Amino acid sequence: MAKQDRAIRTRRTILEAAAAVFDERGYEAATITEILSRAEVTKGALYFHFASKEDLAHAVIDAQLLDAPRLPEPPPASRMQRLVDLGLVFAHRMRDDPLLRGSVRLTLDQGPSGIDRGGPFRGWTRLHARVLAEGKERGEVLPHVVPADTAELIVGAYAGINTMSQAVSGRADLERRAISLYEHIMPSIAVPSVLARLDLAPGRGARALAEAERLRAAGPPPASAPVAVG
Amino acid sequence: MAKQDRAIRTRRTILEAAAAVFDERGYEAATITEILSRAEVTKGALYFHFASKEDLAHAVIDAQLLDAPRLPEPPPASRMQRLVDLGLVFAHRMRDDPLLRGSVRLTLDQGPSGIDRGGPFRGWTRLHARVLAEGKERGEVLPHVVPADTAELIVGAYAGINTMSQAVSGRADLERRAISLYEHIMPSIAVPSVLARLDLAPGRGARALAEAERLRAAGPPPASAPVAVG
Repeated sequence: MAKQDRAIRTRRTILEAAAAVFDERGYEAATITEILSRAEVTKGALYFHFASKEDLAHAVIDAQLLDAPRLPEPPPASRMQRLVDLGLVFAHRMRDDPLLRGSVRLTLDQGPSGIDRGGPFRGWTRLHARVLAEGKERGEVLPHVVPADTAELIVGAYAGINTMSQAVSGRADLERRAISLYEHIMPSIAVPSVLARLDLAPGRGARALAEAERLRAAGPPPASAPVAVG
Repeated sequence: MAKQDRAIRTRRTILEAAAAVFDERGYEAATITEILSRAEVTKGALYFHFASKEDLAHAVIDAQLLDAPRLPEPPPASRMQRLVDLGLVFAHRMRDDPLLRGSVRLTLDQGPSGIDRGGPFRGWTRLHARVLAEGKERGEVLPHVVPADTAELIVGAYAGINTMSQAVSGRADLERRAISLYEHIMPSIAVPSVLARLDLAPGRGARALAEAERLRAAGPPPASAPVAVG
């Protein structure tokens, strides 16, 4: 393994260990010592990649969007299906992706003022706004919808069902809450013919992700814009 | 002032000081020393009322619902107006109620596992479910709505716009986000004739609160159920 590959792998190991410790303890109570012990790396290796606990926290927060999987294109057939897939795939990944879980806790906890946790909110909002704008161009979206405003509302509301799911069920019911969110808001966003064809059934997140992986394995990367933060 | 009144006042002073410190620092970083200094009371007084920092946190969390103001009855004319007033009054109070702000931070931060922060979620959900069920009896609610499910969705989504407002604007835009939430979800909840009469204009929270205070000052307490947690 080349030296550079090893460095990338070590960085990832540290990042995942830090995310797990942040997820369990929160930012304030997390210590570099516990992260080192979890990652099984030397202090020198950690400080080669990250300057401080704050620097580590920012890297974990950023991973939430950089790690977002590329969703199939096409299918899904409608941009509105892609819109709800963003949240349903997220709910599926929250079940067992430690980096995502740590990032989400750092983003949702109010935390010390030194940590900028607005980045994921802005990134997810841009992404949702773009999908809504594309949907609008294709006639999938009701005329009164302002993509930037509706994007902010979806991202904010989603953050809340995430918090409530954590508080009352330890995250076990996040998918159910996400489905309920889309059932409540999509009638105000999508035109009826698109609304009637939305797949909001349980397991949709897992199916969309499997479909994305199948497409990626099958052929060349899609030419049109993948899911990424604009 | 009777001894009991003094004790109630001291307890309240400590609670508000603790809420302010929790709001600024979060649970982990808050110290009893800083709370004592903020409250200007002795350590003995604090421990007379509260056994520990954890006990204080639970009392602050509980205040979120116990302190909820009684909204006018009647008006508002519709139960759906009452439903949105719950969130719009909350947004107004978040501007300058230190106890509410501290309670909200403790509820939304994931925090240490010893703190039960599910109480406000369950309490607000019961309250919303009751208003929705009353609206359903009066024919204000669309037939497919399940009060308990929709109540959970509103409370969860509201928590998120609260978190996002804190993260990206230091809470300055909470009212605007709350209005956007109701604009997006009420068409899936209320029948059109009720929907068309909803007051979602900026400043509604302040107006509803002023109306409640005017009614309370003017006459005997209302006979029907006030806003309280069931």
